[in-house]
Amino acid sequence: MSKSRVEAFSDGVIAIAITLLVLDIPVPERAGPHGLAHDLGHNWPHFVAYAVSFLTIGVIWINHHAALRRLIVVDHGVLALNLLLLLFIGLLPFSTALMANFLRRHSGAHLAAAIYAGSFLAMSITFFAMQRYVLSRPGILDPTIDEASRRVIARRNAVGLIPYAVATAAAALSPYVTLAICGAIALYYALPQTTAT
Amino acid sequence: MSKSRVEAFSDGVIAIAITLLVLDIPVPERAGPHGLAHDLGHNWPHFVAYAVSFLTIGVIWINHHAALRRLIVVDHGVLALNLLLLLFIGLLPFSTALMANFLRRHSGAHLAAAIYAGSFLAMSITFFAMQRYVLSRPGILDPTIDEASRRVIARRNAVGLIPYAVATAAAALSPYVTLAICGAIALYYALPQTTAT
Amino acid sequence: MSKSRVEAFSDGVIAIAITLLVLDIPVPERAGPHGLAHDLGHNWPHFVAYAVSFLTIGVIWINHHAALRRLIVVDHGVLALNLLLLLFIGLLPFSTALMANFLRRHSGAHLAAAIYAGSFLAMSITFFAMQRYVLSRPGILDPTIDEASRRVIARRNAVGLIPYAVATAAAALSPYVTLAICGAIALYYALPQTTAT
Amino acid sequence: MSKSRVEAFSDGVIAIAITLLVLDIPVPERAGPHGLAHDLGHNWPHFVAYAVSFLTIGVIWINHHAALRRLIVVDHGVLALNLLLLLFIGLLPFSTALMANFLRRHSGAHLAAAIYAGSFLAMSITFFAMQRYVLSRPGILDPTIDEASRRVIARRNAVGLIPYAVATAAAALSPYVTLAICGAIALYYALPQTTAT
Repeated sequence: MSKSRVEAFSDGVIAIAITLLVLDIPVPERAGPHGLAHDLGHNWPHFVAYAVSFLTIGVIWINHHAALRRLIVVDHGVLALNLLLLLFIGLLPFSTALMANFLRRHSGAHLAAAIYAGSFLAMSITFFAMQRYVLSRPGILDPTIDEASRRVIARRNAVGLIPYAVATAAAALSPYVTLAICGAIALYYALPQTTAT
Repeated sequence: MSKSRVEAFSDGVIAIAITLLVLDIPVPERAGPHGLAHDLGHNWPHFVAYAVSFLTIGVIWINHHAALRRLIVVDHGVLALNLLLLLFIGLLPFSTALMANFLRRHSGAHLAAAIYAGSFLAMSITFFAMQRYVLSRPGILDPTIDEASRRVIARRNAVGLIPYAVATAAAALSPYVTLAICGAIALYYALPQTTAT
Repeated sequence: MSKSRVEAFSDGVIAIAITLLVLDIPVPERAGPHGLAHDLGHNWPHFVAYAVSFLTIGVIWINHHAALRRLIVVDHGVLALNLLLLLFIGLLPFSTALMANFLRRHSGAHLAAAIYAGSFLAMSITFFAMQRYVLSRPGILDPTIDEASRRVIARRNAVGLIPYAVATAAAALSPYVTLAICGAIALYYALPQTTAT
Repeated sequence: MSKSRVEAFSDGVIAIAITLLVLDIPVPERAGPHGLAHDLGHNWPHFVAYAVSFLTIGVIWINHHAALRRLIVVDHGVLALNLLLLLFIGLLPFSTALMANFLRRHSGAHLAAAIYAGSFLAMSITFFAMQRYVLSRPGILDPTIDEASRRVIARRNAVGLIPYAVATAAAALSPYVTLAICGAIALYYALPQTTAT
């Protein structure tokens, strides 16, 4: 399997998942008694969840390419881990809609938030596993990447899991905190000078 | 990040957003008392909004490529602004459906039209910001583009914001005027000899 | 605008439109009193319309590439006509769902069939216009294509409009005849040795 | 038709079909009397069917590329068989939703399971037919692939049909057995060292 085909297919799945997010934003059929502005304002969790998930998937896409760029060949292990990663990315329109639907409900908000951050965590763990797999196989990794760089990459990926683990745990306290952490993570990585792209 | 991957991913998101627009056109389940022709005619705002948004996204795609063609490298700033641009393009199936649903309603039509043109304005402002970012960084821009050309590009992008600002403001008067202006902008740019592609 | 980017974007829109067709096939929530087999059998127009539209879009994709392959540059006229072509292709999930919903209804079936075949006709006319535009501009067309080949291409495209015009007109008689003609056209072009790909 | 365009278009359709699967997972609007956890747990067939179909389509994508890599040219026969293959892949979001909806129902479960495994079987048979077509035409196949390799490929593809035929037949006994077999097939091929990629 050539690297460029894996990139093209992964790009496709990621681009589709990111664009399907918009289908989760409800389009009012007609204005309620308080007017359309009120109705749309009431739907703010959908807009916030859209933005947070969009940026998060965008950041994953950037990292995904940085990861693939370091490979010289793609073996079946990379393909299998990449497919699992895409499976979790493909679930994000579901977990985003769930988060937006339940954020303000009395029942289900904590679980929905845990699933939302948990789906980002699952995605990050799979990405971390793919990175570890690649870094430990000399025949796959670009040989110009030295031991020190490999350690930096591995550490950065491991550290990247912590905020999502915190966000998932924070769902027990408040779904708003979970959403805020996920948003902060997305902004932190999306803003310039924070990733080594 | 290689330029070709940014192009491929952006192409993907834009192609998906433009094709998802069709999901906003309601498909009648059965004909009403006045017949199917009447029902479809009644849905004309959906067909008009589909065409206007389709052409607008198509024009943005053309401009997006012209912009990327001028780059020699893609830095994180370009990536971040491009992601924001895609976020607004990704919202267009929502704002298009909103516009089509509310165009003829007593309540909400002005706001829906403002959001519709406003989403095009947000997209154009982000595109303008990306262009300004690129034009001000010598290491990113193709060095064969001289100072005069840079000024022309910057001015053309700034001027391009005005019609969408007018269309957004016109929503206070009439949503039909907003839709007509957006349609006229799309046609103007889509017709031959008006863009320097 | 490079030819390969126009191809990639067009491929994207066509691939998405062809894959969105599946969303028009209703998935029963639970079996009715006559059983699931009966319910699915009752939905046969959706399966037939899916197959006919899928093959038709597939054939248009094949022809689209043959057309682009003959170009040496892409000017704004080609871009504009191509965007119009994609706009009609993007509508096919709507017209396919309309056809499937109304095929057996007392009211609306003739109109739905006319819209179905008419959307294929609109697509073919736009494709024909794009071909004519290209064939009449020496600077765009591959110069190794001689006058005789150009005439063959132009004639084949003009002839290709006739079956869709007949299918659209036949909707006045019977929507079943329209669907059968559209299916026969798709099969004729999809089967080997009938197109000069 | 160049090989790379067939690959790009097929990649697009496969990537979209795999990503549309998420739309079949129901997103609860509000929690029922037993809570959101119970509601989501109740929907487990949707999650299992999502995972099984996602991995299956991923494996087909891997095999599809291995098959195209062996070609030196793409003739109309390959194009037509490939289009038929994509038609069946495009149906999988439908058959997956059907399977998930009916798995636990008294009425329709056996038929839904037969359709689910049957759609994989139809996909595999078309893939097998495309392989046979290619292997029997010297001008299409890479000439460095010798007679022995061709026999191995043909046998492996024929053998690959058996599990799906068994899974389809098993629907008469139990839809759970069908789902389990399909899941086992997907896992077997997705795990490393089982395909000659």
